[in-house]
Amino acid sequence: MKGNLLYEGKAKQVFMVTEDPDALILSYKNDATAFNGEKQAVFQGKGRYNNLISSAIFTYLQTNGIASHFKQQLNDTEQLVEKTTIIPLEVVVRNIAAGSITRRLGIPEKTAFTSPLLELYYKDDQLGDPIINDEHARLLTDATGTNLATIKQMALQVNEKLQPFFQQVGLALVDFKLEFGRNAQGEIVLADEISPDTCRLWDLTTGEKMDKDVFREDLGDLIEVYDAILQRLEAVK
Amino acid sequence: MKGNLLYEGKAKQVFMVTEDPDALILSYKNDATAFNGEKQAVFQGKGRYNNLISSAIFTYLQTNGIASHFKQQLNDTEQLVEKTTIIPLEVVVRNIAAGSITRRLGIPEKTAFTSPLLELYYKDDQLGDPIINDEHARLLTDATGTNLATIKQMALQVNEKLQPFFQQVGLALVDFKLEFGRNAQGEIVLADEISPDTCRLWDLTTGEKMDKDVFREDLGDLIEVYDAILQRLEAVK
Repeated sequence: MKGNLLYEGKAKQVFMVTEDPDALILSYKNDATAFNGEKQAVFQGKGRYNNLISSAIFTYLQTNGIASHFKQQLNDTEQLVEKTTIIPLEVVVRNIAAGSITRRLGIPEKTAFTSPLLELYYKDDQLGDPIINDEHARLLTDATGTNLATIKQMALQVNEKLQPFFQQVGLALVDFKLEFGRNAQGEIVLADEISPDTCRLWDLTTGEKMDKDVFREDLGDLIEVYDAILQRLEAVK
Repeated sequence: MKGNLLYEGKAKQVFMVTEDPDALILSYKNDATAFNGEKQAVFQGKGRYNNLISSAIFTYLQTNGIASHFKQQLNDTEQLVEKTTIIPLEVVVRNIAAGSITRRLGIPEKTAFTSPLLELYYKDDQLGDPIINDEHARLLTDATGTNLATIKQMALQVNEKLQPFFQQVGLALVDFKLEFGRNAQGEIVLADEISPDTCRLWDLTTGEKMDKDVFREDLGDLIEVYDAILQRLEAVK
């Protein structure tokens, strides 16, 4: 069933599926990286948490009308997904200022945006995933103007769905990163993962950071925090 | 006539005009700066060249229907302009890849874009004039979506007018930076300067760089090059 390793990224391995050329297995690793790979560590159990959390989120999004690559969770660290060709864009939606935007544009952390702010980054490790505009995206990828409009609309829909999803478990969705791919039918679907590795989540009561910033900023025990997120999500299932 | 110094930038001083509150005098300095002020030098005569070249270009653009702040050249280093409130955006139009885009996006120098590539930068020295997208521009400035559309359209019109203008004197217009301001009537007009400090100009025959890159990259005598640009422009007046 699990075929050859197709690709290995910083946080996941991607395997082929022997009996289905249109499917892939995502295997979540325990590695954590930050600052474009400059900071690295391994956290036992992290792969499991991200797999379970991302599976729960993609399941929720699919029942709420967001087309994605997700098929099913297979086991603790693996999930079955539709094979897509990833469009090399990181689509970031920001509700509250945090992270790079505070340094890049001098916007104070915790500034709430009156409407969600959408950013595109060119997914290229060697270039450090530079921020780009729509014209660059069309130049550097095969995404058309219509594709970009679809991607942006889907990203804002994901935001609209995920804000109440996290709010019900006492978390503010500060910002998150999405990736999109084209499936065998050429449709653009949500791909990659959505987890505390790819979202900023702040406790609504304490303001505590409950995401990869715990690792980036050495704020505490990453696994404890990811476990708390999973427990909160399982409590409202 | 020349009133108080209102503002001093890296390349120009801006003076009030005693008898006209809606006018300003731009006084071009001999200073050259690059890499966000990290590299600095003074070139005797540079202010005169930029004033004469920018005056010639703005005169040409006005006769070709581009609304700008330019009123008239006053003397060797000064020009009279309409007072505007500058929108803190640097609008860059690129016809051929050169400079920061080659490093930022890995596009080889000399790559010709099939259509002009437009970029916005947030004019803020402390932040190093970061590249931004349209949403950032609306967040960080008072420009509306309609204003941004106007600015982009005007920037592309300037490009369409300036390409043949430079071609007739044997120069390829590789890229350039524009700034826009609002006048007393609230209209958006082209402002600032257009000169070899703000354009990349390559000799069409030899490929030689004939702009501020001569200073940035230590390629030769900046004043000789600026003098050659002025002489070519005066020869076709």
